[in-house]
Amino acid sequence: MTERTTAADPAAPNTTKTLKVALLGAGNVGSQVARILLEDADALQARTGARLELSGIAVRNIDAPREVELPRELFTTDASALVRGADIVIELMGGLEPARTLILEAIEHGATVVSGNKALLAADGPSLYEKADAAGVQLSYEAAVAGAIPILRPIRDSLAGDKITRVLGIVNGTTNYILDQMDTTGAQFEDALADAQRLGYAEADPTADVEGHDAAAKAAILASLSFHTRFALENVHCQGISSVTAADIAAAKDAGFVIKLLAIAEKLTLVSDDGVESEAVSVRVHPTLLPREHPLAAVHGAFNAVFIEAENAGELMFYGRGAGGTPTASAVLGDVVSAARRMVLGGPGRTETTTGHVPAVGIEAVSTRYYIGVDAADQPGVLSKIAAVFTDHGVSIETMRQTVHQNGGASSAELRFVTHEASEAALAATVEAIKGLDVINSVTSVLRVEGV
Amino acid sequence: MTERTTAADPAAPNTTKTLKVALLGAGNVGSQVARILLEDADALQARTGARLELSGIAVRNIDAPREVELPRELFTTDASALVRGADIVIELMGGLEPARTLILEAIEHGATVVSGNKALLAADGPSLYEKADAAGVQLSYEAAVAGAIPILRPIRDSLAGDKITRVLGIVNGTTNYILDQMDTTGAQFEDALADAQRLGYAEADPTADVEGHDAAAKAAILASLSFHTRFALENVHCQGISSVTAADIAAAKDAGFVIKLLAIAEKLTLVSDDGVESEAVSVRVHPTLLPREHPLAAVHGAFNAVFIEAENAGELMFYGRGAGGTPTASAVLGDVVSAARRMVLGGPGRTETTTGHVPAVGIEAVSTRYYIGVDAADQPGVLSKIAAVFTDHGVSIETMRQTVHQNGGASSAELRFVTHEASEAALAATVEAIKGLDVINSVTSVLRVEGV
Repeated sequence: MTERTTAADPAAPNTTKTLKVALLGAGNVGSQVARILLEDADALQARTGARLELSGIAVRNIDAPREVELPRELFTTDASALVRGADIVIELMGGLEPARTLILEAIEHGATVVSGNKALLAADGPSLYEKADAAGVQLSYEAAVAGAIPILRPIRDSLAGDKITRVLGIVNGTTNYILDQMDTTGAQFEDALADAQRLGYAEADPTADVEGHDAAAKAAILASLSFHTRFALENVHCQGISSVTAADIAAAKDAGFVIKLLAIAEKLTLVSDDGVESEAVSVRVHPTLLPREHPLAAVHGAFNAVFIEAENAGELMFYGRGAGGTPTASAVLGDVVSAARRMVLGGPGRTETTTGHVPAVGIEAVSTRYYIGVDAADQPGVLSKIAAVFTDHGVSIETMRQTVHQNGGASSAELRFVTHEASEAALAATVEAIKGLDVINSVTSVLRVEGV
Repeated sequence: MTERTTAADPAAPNTTKTLKVALLGAGNVGSQVARILLEDADALQARTGARLELSGIAVRNIDAPREVELPRELFTTDASALVRGADIVIELMGGLEPARTLILEAIEHGATVVSGNKALLAADGPSLYEKADAAGVQLSYEAAVAGAIPILRPIRDSLAGDKITRVLGIVNGTTNYILDQMDTTGAQFEDALADAQRLGYAEADPTADVEGHDAAAKAAILASLSFHTRFALENVHCQGISSVTAADIAAAKDAGFVIKLLAIAEKLTLVSDDGVESEAVSVRVHPTLLPREHPLAAVHGAFNAVFIEAENAGELMFYGRGAGGTPTASAVLGDVVSAARRMVLGGPGRTETTTGHVPAVGIEAVSTRYYIGVDAADQPGVLSKIAAVFTDHGVSIETMRQTVHQNGGASSAELRFVTHEASEAALAATVEAIKGLDVINSVTSVLRVEGV
């Protein structure tokens, strides 16, 4: 951390550099970024030593209704012309095109690019970073992961002298709100989702959130930075929360766990058949049981948090608002101020990070503890039959709980197991074999356990 | 956040710059920094593009026992000679002298300085920063506040486009461990302190920790960065935890609060007698009641966390290990890598931050809610007498709880009040007046309440 005095002297305005800032997109976040650039111009000048002049806002429809009233003369539909005249381009359009083409145009013209477009960065980040490098311009994107929370810069700068071993992130506010509601009120998924939609925490089509796609894009970005390697969306194993039931949540609660949708990136040591060790990284998103005393378990509502384990630093957590126009605008402005400071100082625009070559591995290479719920006949010998299946597959049981339910005349037994660490393959084979037992009605849930 | 490829090419070692790193001090943190510099030299070269060569370790006594075995030839008692030959000087000696003189020597010779010396920075920071500026060298000190937690850099960079309004920090692990023990086990302060001493969380002379002096130094540093103004130790109102009793903790718990020692820096709007508004900052350390659902309430044991409120970002929290050799070394190395990257790139060594001129105000300017415990006679009319005193002084009661204790034949009433916001002056006058009532045995506690 560096702290300095004596920036641009406000008493000598003629010497103050002006940086033209082009804004692409005036949605939820974009309109707040525009507001802050206009309202806080003096404070931003004091922080950077430069006048940040909002030169224009490119939108598809100038007359669309917006949350913030902004000077009409700033709006344009010619994004390309705006980009060509800018020193700093802020891309907040979302989606792959025309965002990608406009970012490439900005890079070509030597403009610094600040983006919050997680979808584009997860899909195409590596090629964009390379083009920015080749052109010697900066590309920054703090707002793309966990909204207002400063997480990418600390990973890249503050932890640069350390080795990150694991990242566990609650990076999607919609799913955290839904799971938190289910945990607090006992609601079913559908009711909690409807509630989230009514409150504006979930979209009319909630697929990208509840199926984990949004979290997967953020997982790819977090993994790339944490392990100095490029991970793309196809490297991320992804499972959403739509199949998590109120019964799963209740059973987890009863056993001292909470269920969270986590974006996980972790370093693994693989051992080949001939005993050679190599490193690999697993990047995945799935509903996860966490002990209720884990710091991430206390992240409620639509808040986000990223929990990091590093060799020297130990455990760190970063907590804050993961979405919302104004909070996310704060992260965008942080990138803009950093870029402007560097431009004022006239130093080189590049900050190097050597890229490693740790391969991404599929979910089948991951060993975790598992939580398995089974609905079985209530008769003698059931537990021993199931236990034998676990033993046959080399999966060791850590805890078991049994509850007997009376359904009219019949009764059934609900068995809930937490295993010791087991591989995906061993677990899948175990679950298949349990399903084949004649005393089993169904396997009601299979969830991973982390943080213990 | 910026991400780049193509750093120093490891296949072309002849082009690799070597940076000489001088280490001052080989205690708890220093010896771990030396170990990491030696063990992880290749990884650090990959991150920075430079070879970081540990050129020597200055200590008072070369033969003193150390936690980590380090090459004997690196040690020297001539710190001054070591500093004069270095590109980067890491000062981890602690204390005011000779640390100050050596840092000034490093600045004079154009070396980048990384320090973890909170006492020196709180006492003398402003003059050190100015000298570093004048010489055009960097001075960074992430390790000085909250150990491994990246907090200073996010405040300075990531939140540079936002306006921080309040910082609440658990920045002393010893006191957090003691208060957490008291909260969990019901122990008295003395017993929890003895426990902390036995486990190595508290020193034989615990004064600096339990009286809040360590937290006050960190509060001054946090306030300076958050409000772009220089605050020194004498601007910090400081109250420790040695007078917090098991009864206070129990009463707070009963009312849904937890007691934490907080370092607080907050922006206030003062209104003069003729109605003119002006901004000021209060910097203070005191035991504080926090609602148990506040994110800081979940910070247990010797962990640290800093909770930040910013105009746009909203609420943020940074959590991690606040002490310990290896975790703190991680923060030191983060500063070293950042400094080395900048030196490799050859850009200017300065990163500007205009300094504002928000005055520091004393505790008397602060309005907070208060928790007041009173031991009174158990007789009719007591509550109305006390309530009248509050009313007379313009202090409004939010909640009151009364418990009657039987002591043999006699009985006494314990009354616990939480007030609405009141000024320090009004509260002090109220407490004095309550003490003067004939029905009062004693005022057992007066504590501030935050986070509601």
